[in-house]
Amino acid sequence: MSTFYDRFLARRGALRSVLCVGIDPDPAAIPNSDSGIEGTFSFLREIIQATAPYACAYKPNVAFFEVLGPAGWDLFGRIVQCIRREAPEALIVADAKRGDLANTARFYAETFFKTYNCDGLTVNPYMGMESLAPYDQFSDRGVFALCLTSNPGAIDFQMQGSPPLFEQVARSVQERNAITRNYWMVAGATRDADSLSRIKSIAPSVPLLIPGVGAQGGELAVVLRNCGADVLVNASRSILYAYKEHSGVSRGEAAARSAKNVVDEMRSLLSF
Amino acid sequence: MSTFYDRFLARRGALRSVLCVGIDPDPAAIPNSDSGIEGTFSFLREIIQATAPYACAYKPNVAFFEVLGPAGWDLFGRIVQCIRREAPEALIVADAKRGDLANTARFYAETFFKTYNCDGLTVNPYMGMESLAPYDQFSDRGVFALCLTSNPGAIDFQMQGSPPLFEQVARSVQERNAITRNYWMVAGATRDADSLSRIKSIAPSVPLLIPGVGAQGGELAVVLRNCGADVLVNASRSILYAYKEHSGVSRGEAAARSAKNVVDEMRSLLSF
Repeated sequence: MSTFYDRFLARRGALRSVLCVGIDPDPAAIPNSDSGIEGTFSFLREIIQATAPYACAYKPNVAFFEVLGPAGWDLFGRIVQCIRREAPEALIVADAKRGDLANTARFYAETFFKTYNCDGLTVNPYMGMESLAPYDQFSDRGVFALCLTSNPGAIDFQMQGSPPLFEQVARSVQERNAITRNYWMVAGATRDADSLSRIKSIAPSVPLLIPGVGAQGGELAVVLRNCGADVLVNASRSILYAYKEHSGVSRGEAAARSAKNVVDEMRSLLSF
Repeated sequence: MSTFYDRFLARRGALRSVLCVGIDPDPAAIPNSDSGIEGTFSFLREIIQATAPYACAYKPNVAFFEVLGPAGWDLFGRIVQCIRREAPEALIVADAKRGDLANTARFYAETFFKTYNCDGLTVNPYMGMESLAPYDQFSDRGVFALCLTSNPGAIDFQMQGSPPLFEQVARSVQERNAITRNYWMVAGATRDADSLSRIKSIAPSVPLLIPGVGAQGGELAVVLRNCGADVLVNASRSILYAYKEHSGVSRGEAAARSAKNVVDEMRSLLSF
């Protein structure tokens, strides 16, 4: 089976897009007409159908499903299948930020790569590189290690030390990736451009997932100038809930317009 | 409602035990006669019934349930209810090591504290203290922040920096706990005693959850000498799968004997 990175290159080339659409079904933001599990499913299906021409990848946020209990996990599985139907070549990255050891990490890997058949998974490196090793046997999947996150509180631990923790993580992941070739890193767009270039200089062969563009206020041009085209740039709420800003169009049409705007900007900034 | 710590004190006093029984239902270790969801449930119920007189707390490891899909989450919910029935005063700490921001963290908190009604949750501090804030509104629950874990790979990041990362985490949690009073920290028993005393000196008011006693080879006496009685000491496989070491007794009886051995040692080391 081809690697995650190969499939990323193919999808990026076909769509001329590095957009990742975050699937964060917040009950407080979903239209009242679409409440409940079935309503959420039909709302998300409409978004997925409408954004399929623009989405290089989708990133469902597991917490928003998990809180609904077993029925939420059933919904998560149905959303994965829905993406496979509507956008067969799009990559699916489960945003679950798992991090644990040995057997436990192995079960997390099996959960997302086998039980739900996702293409990628976000993981938390706090427990050391040993905690990421169980994912390595899934060489065709993408392992997305948190490096530098987009929140102000990233300064508490990630930016402490000399070199700072996030640089240590970047160095370790670069070394691991030289062998396994299945790593990505999560690096926040709302951080300064210097940090992004620093990460790229330490880990040149590790592609980046950049959250925080769109509703979180990142700057697409700065990101792409520093990172090149080996990125996935995530937008969640600005696409999912675009219907709130566009009157007179469907929820899907609003999402498609919002996605197209981002992708148009990507195409003007990158030579795919 | 009383706080997690108050309920811990009451249970510890009533049982003279600081034992936390880890619930890690590994299909490879569960008796063949108990395979499948129903078999796993009846195996775990037997263990819970047998260890109820010794368990100050239970710590189900979420990964082992999650891998089974929605049915695994249903099983997780049933195990929580089973503990409530068989050991009504025992504390239930979901070992899920969640770590994320804002809404996402809030949904993780709601998942474990509301959807499944657990008493405590393990969390990962990599994204900063901001990522732990959403748990604070559940002032009657216990928030267990990873500090220093028991694996060799803990040296990669947790022990780097000056002061090392785990000490920074301990200091931050101590400060937060002075206000919220609902924090615990996870500190590995297989680390040297110096690290444990260091954590206690930095964060004297934060009780500790110590994994790694039993099958992972920690030393109970060293742990209790350094930490006192404000601890939960976890044993998982050495209790759950004790039946493999004891022939001629039931799985439950084997687990009870193993739990009693640990608790007897606790009683000889601590004056409850």
